[in-house]
Amino acid sequence: MTSTDPLQRQLADHRAEVERLRQKVCELHGELPRWNLVTWTSGNISARVPDTDLMVIKPSGVSYDDITPADMVVCDLHGRLVEGHHKPSSDTDAHAYVYRALPDVGGVVHTHSPYATAWAARGEAVPCAVTAMADEFGGDIPVGPFALIGDDSIGKGIVATLEGQRSPAVLMRGHGVFTVGATARAAVKAAVMCEDVARTVHIARQGGPVERLPQEDVDALYHRYQNVYGQ
Amino acid sequence: MTSTDPLQRQLADHRAEVERLRQKVCELHGELPRWNLVTWTSGNISARVPDTDLMVIKPSGVSYDDITPADMVVCDLHGRLVEGHHKPSSDTDAHAYVYRALPDVGGVVHTHSPYATAWAARGEAVPCAVTAMADEFGGDIPVGPFALIGDDSIGKGIVATLEGQRSPAVLMRGHGVFTVGATARAAVKAAVMCEDVARTVHIARQGGPVERLPQEDVDALYHRYQNVYGQ
Amino acid sequence: MTSTDPLQRQLADHRAEVERLRQKVCELHGELPRWNLVTWTSGNISARVPDTDLMVIKPSGVSYDDITPADMVVCDLHGRLVEGHHKPSSDTDAHAYVYRALPDVGGVVHTHSPYATAWAARGEAVPCAVTAMADEFGGDIPVGPFALIGDDSIGKGIVATLEGQRSPAVLMRGHGVFTVGATARAAVKAAVMCEDVARTVHIARQGGPVERLPQEDVDALYHRYQNVYGQ
Amino acid sequence: MTSTDPLQRQLADHRAEVERLRQKVCELHGELPRWNLVTWTSGNISARVPDTDLMVIKPSGVSYDDITPADMVVCDLHGRLVEGHHKPSSDTDAHAYVYRALPDVGGVVHTHSPYATAWAARGEAVPCAVTAMADEFGGDIPVGPFALIGDDSIGKGIVATLEGQRSPAVLMRGHGVFTVGATARAAVKAAVMCEDVARTVHIARQGGPVERLPQEDVDALYHRYQNVYGQ
Repeated sequence: MTSTDPLQRQLADHRAEVERLRQKVCELHGELPRWNLVTWTSGNISARVPDTDLMVIKPSGVSYDDITPADMVVCDLHGRLVEGHHKPSSDTDAHAYVYRALPDVGGVVHTHSPYATAWAARGEAVPCAVTAMADEFGGDIPVGPFALIGDDSIGKGIVATLEGQRSPAVLMRGHGVFTVGATARAAVKAAVMCEDVARTVHIARQGGPVERLPQEDVDALYHRYQNVYGQ
Repeated sequence: MTSTDPLQRQLADHRAEVERLRQKVCELHGELPRWNLVTWTSGNISARVPDTDLMVIKPSGVSYDDITPADMVVCDLHGRLVEGHHKPSSDTDAHAYVYRALPDVGGVVHTHSPYATAWAARGEAVPCAVTAMADEFGGDIPVGPFALIGDDSIGKGIVATLEGQRSPAVLMRGHGVFTVGATARAAVKAAVMCEDVARTVHIARQGGPVERLPQEDVDALYHRYQNVYGQ
Repeated sequence: MTSTDPLQRQLADHRAEVERLRQKVCELHGELPRWNLVTWTSGNISARVPDTDLMVIKPSGVSYDDITPADMVVCDLHGRLVEGHHKPSSDTDAHAYVYRALPDVGGVVHTHSPYATAWAARGEAVPCAVTAMADEFGGDIPVGPFALIGDDSIGKGIVATLEGQRSPAVLMRGHGVFTVGATARAAVKAAVMCEDVARTVHIARQGGPVERLPQEDVDALYHRYQNVYGQ
Repeated sequence: MTSTDPLQRQLADHRAEVERLRQKVCELHGELPRWNLVTWTSGNISARVPDTDLMVIKPSGVSYDDITPADMVVCDLHGRLVEGHHKPSSDTDAHAYVYRALPDVGGVVHTHSPYATAWAARGEAVPCAVTAMADEFGGDIPVGPFALIGDDSIGKGIVATLEGQRSPAVLMRGHGVFTVGATARAAVKAAVMCEDVARTVHIARQGGPVERLPQEDVDALYHRYQNVYGQ
């Protein structure tokens, strides 16, 4: 007997991939405390289940010590629980909106990492002043609007801010960081690098004026890094 | 033969809960170095024993490496030793005063965590400039008076400052942080988040002016977080 | 057959204590990286061998990973090697001078811990602005003169600066921190707390003016802490 | 049958040394995250194979968790792969140029360590304001030109900047740190100390003006440290 609910059908048809992503998303959460991006239970990671209307996401308010693949929950792309023993992350609506709006995005990460959130608190974009930032972000890290949790406002703000930018990271004003990537791992890397460059540029500016890199150099670095770096 | 001392009777009648809290309070002390809230032997956590006039608290000047549940001491709510092999924390009077004055408080934490203590050294409240702060503290983190250790001055300062505030944390001027919670774990979470937001808002302000979030947004975030977040 | 060299005789007569201190001084070196006081092989700890003209000290330029009690070297109080397979720390002359000049000192620690060394680089005393500083240091942490390594200049500068101060720590100008204590462990605690308060007061001052605590409160806190705290 | 390719002959003739350096260079990469010099997969270390035209270097974009001696790649001194299963580090051209130009250099390290990179972002040399800096760098840490990756520009900038300086470290403008040493371990030590002093002098200057040490004192400290320190 097969389910007539299309989401349950997708879940059954992609069972192996769902379990692989539960494992992967759970593992990737270990990178958040490791790189000092999260405090207590803050921060969350999700992955789209390819070729479905499903995503795998962290449960709400669970400790990084206790988290297991089985705790990861499966939601549809409107944030409704499809499978899991826990409530999904309170930021699920924002993740879901991003997946609906941006079909190439396979992973989303949210943190309140301290240096990036400090730029967000002032509502100031991080200027592209070091080559590592040109490599990963291709320019400034932009600031999105202040938006309240509870509906699509945050998701809309993320998507509108990312549009026409190379940056896979957006600083949501007065809130924190959202990053996207082709995979959850790529989005985690963007979150890690976002905090790294937010810190370096902050420290740099504490000592005196810092200039953006010339745009043509940023362009050259970005294209090289996206096409040549890594294995 | 039963004890005629009412505190010894309470201890006997709640033996299982006392031992559970010794274990819990000892475990929670591991969160303080983990989140960089304490240096050497500074910092202490206590828990009220429900339905008694007793509390479980860290002994004075004992290393975080060596601490065991058996080291935790039981005091009455005037800070007098009821059971234990060690002297109680030198901050026991302040914990005791808080339990006497605030019946809903089940846990108290004290730290000199660096960013929060820096605001305390200036006597400046941390302005509510990021959503994580609205969630947990519902507004600014207020500053209490400078008070000397040795009597009820610190306890009175904490209670007077917390009155009429949502914040479970208070910055005692020139001293450090006290937090309260329904449980010791909730008070530890407040201490961890207090340092986190004290750091983020400090860094933010180093880069330029930072505005408070609008009060109606703070209210909305606080009410949602207190009622919806977590499992 | 007994040695006619008086230092060798002292060594033989206090063999058990020397071995105990080798173990203790080696162990205490683990506290320096743990509290982020040292980088690479910088920093060193020594202990006086009581009732002798000997001290136990870290060898020069040995990694914190590889250090064993057997690596600790024994020197006389002019810094000359008495027993050991390694050269003593390049700061041995300063340790030796302190032991000669201050008979109550049983332990000496030297670090370049970053926040304390930053105050030292400016030649500015850390003002006593938080109660933890009053407790441990009883006032400001003073600044000693700039002095070159290689003779008694550093030792003389430390001793002259500590004279008439409660502080067990001195910031040697343009150099770093030296602390003393009745034991090596007490000197390590002073080094750990020195960095902690140097950091807190630095952060505090980045946000605005910071006032010293009133002297009578500093006095009260210091006397209480030295006489009441701990087990 | 012996190879007629001279590089393959060198590789065969120095097989034991190549394998020893693979092990050593791999191990030394553990120092980079340990001292907080790298984020994600950034940073790389190489070692010249003595008496050959070969070097051992980290592969591109591989995680610090997964790295094994077998992953290290062997390149010639123009950055061409000679042996290995991975692409060499994207910074291999810069390492290779340094080895070609500076025959005494046996190791090269590159990082984006945050405090040093902050000075690089402003294009400002770190002034020699503390004795630890005089010891290791013998003066200021100089700034090299902004240069794009992809040819010999970075290598030329490093070599031109190091010329006539005692410092084994150079801050490449808008980019990060390159250090050199007689061995890979010495270059790693220089990278670790570079970040340490960049941080200390940054913090010092946040609190007020910081003066360079007098040149004659810098000279005395440098000569002593280079000739007397260590075992």
